[in-house]
Amino acid sequence: MAAIEAGIAKATTITVLLTVAYDGTNYAGWQRQNNAVAVQQRLEEALEELFAQPIKLTATSRTDAGVHALGQRVVFELPALNIPINKLPQVVNAYLPPDIVVQAAETVPLGFNPRFAAKAKTYRYQFYNAALPNPLQAHYCAFVPRILDVNEMTRAAQVFVGTHDFTAFCASGSSAKTFVRQIFSCDITQNGELITLTIKGNGFLYNMVRIIAGTVLYCGLGKLKAADIPGIITERKREKAGKTMPACGLCLMEVEF
Amino acid sequence: MAAIEAGIAKATTITVLLTVAYDGTNYAGWQRQNNAVAVQQRLEEALEELFAQPIKLTATSRTDAGVHALGQRVVFELPALNIPINKLPQVVNAYLPPDIVVQAAETVPLGFNPRFAAKAKTYRYQFYNAALPNPLQAHYCAFVPRILDVNEMTRAAQVFVGTHDFTAFCASGSSAKTFVRQIFSCDITQNGELITLTIKGNGFLYNMVRIIAGTVLYCGLGKLKAADIPGIITERKREKAGKTMPACGLCLMEVEF
Repeated sequence: MAAIEAGIAKATTITVLLTVAYDGTNYAGWQRQNNAVAVQQRLEEALEELFAQPIKLTATSRTDAGVHALGQRVVFELPALNIPINKLPQVVNAYLPPDIVVQAAETVPLGFNPRFAAKAKTYRYQFYNAALPNPLQAHYCAFVPRILDVNEMTRAAQVFVGTHDFTAFCASGSSAKTFVRQIFSCDITQNGELITLTIKGNGFLYNMVRIIAGTVLYCGLGKLKAADIPGIITERKREKAGKTMPACGLCLMEVEF
Repeated sequence: MAAIEAGIAKATTITVLLTVAYDGTNYAGWQRQNNAVAVQQRLEEALEELFAQPIKLTATSRTDAGVHALGQRVVFELPALNIPINKLPQVVNAYLPPDIVVQAAETVPLGFNPRFAAKAKTYRYQFYNAALPNPLQAHYCAFVPRILDVNEMTRAAQVFVGTHDFTAFCASGSSAKTFVRQIFSCDITQNGELITLTIKGNGFLYNMVRIIAGTVLYCGLGKLKAADIPGIITERKREKAGKTMPACGLCLMEVEF
């Protein structure tokens, strides 16, 4: 009898996939924490207030404290949805602070997991390159007050494209089963004082984008050459790569399934 | 004797002109307030800590609460300066929070007043035009979730160029002696969801840029036509112009002497 009831409940469950943007400045990252406010908590609270029932969110990426997102993807289940799905973003946003915004909502098949279903993720890392910092960019860029060789940074970024073992570009303590990831594209663009690294891959290890950004920056500063990177990849030693750049410059831009 | 001492003190006084950038989000505007923190107070405190004496700042523009600046100009006097003037920005910045940054310093003749010496000021007003807000732009743009006729906004901006009586574009309670101001240029640019009004003039009345931005926006929304603006200027009635846009979209870009 219990099994039948569970079966009925399951059959009517709706799985909702949200696209979420957030300014990570004032959050302890995506994932719920015991002693700090995370984006997951704020969004779960908003949905629980709206739907008057417990909500458990599963996200594609557990972004770190201070990291931003324009295209985080998040899933939750509901027994029923009595709001048109395309109206859901505006309704949820009324329950959210201005630094978290639901951008889109759609229904997906039961059991859809946005972490395992992700085929590609795109991140950007922003540098602000000038003699003195810009207070309007302080939360969204790493400030670099040194002359940079942007051509060498462009060559360095290109070296990461392909399928490689990224052990040298992963923070220690990672529980990853394999350190092999495929990078589809990795580019540098410049717009005045803003230099942006845009990287798309099938997945990223812990701190991988921030360490790649630090390595590309070292190439811009002349501390490394783009030609050194294949050797650093092969050697698989974290200390040979560049430093881990600050969280504020990082933004999760897009997830493709 | 007192007069001679004052004379000697004056002869050795150095007048320093600073270029200052700030994120106005967390401040009650430029001007010192009794019950809220203003940018002037923070900067005076930093300079007083550095020079170990009272400092009184005079700025070109008394920007309102929430308004940003990339090129505010500020003057103070000192009996002597024992730091090379070109090193002063970095030294002062060490005493400032990250949302206020001194960008440049130079010496100017005694009695130089950055308010009266200003020949031209440039402001920008930013609109974020999309169906849903972008949390990374929330502090720096007015959010407009409606379809905009950007060509009509461009035509509307052009109408403001020239010497006009801007009574209709001034908040009530202004103590201005004359409402005539000359606008040298007024342009609209679009970059994706960002629409920017850039306006340069010999001076601006209280809330004038925010009311011009609201009037240009009304032209984008079809509530007004660019061709209506000459009549609004002539009629000199505040209620005929558009609404006063929020402070967060406004930024003082440049002051020319």
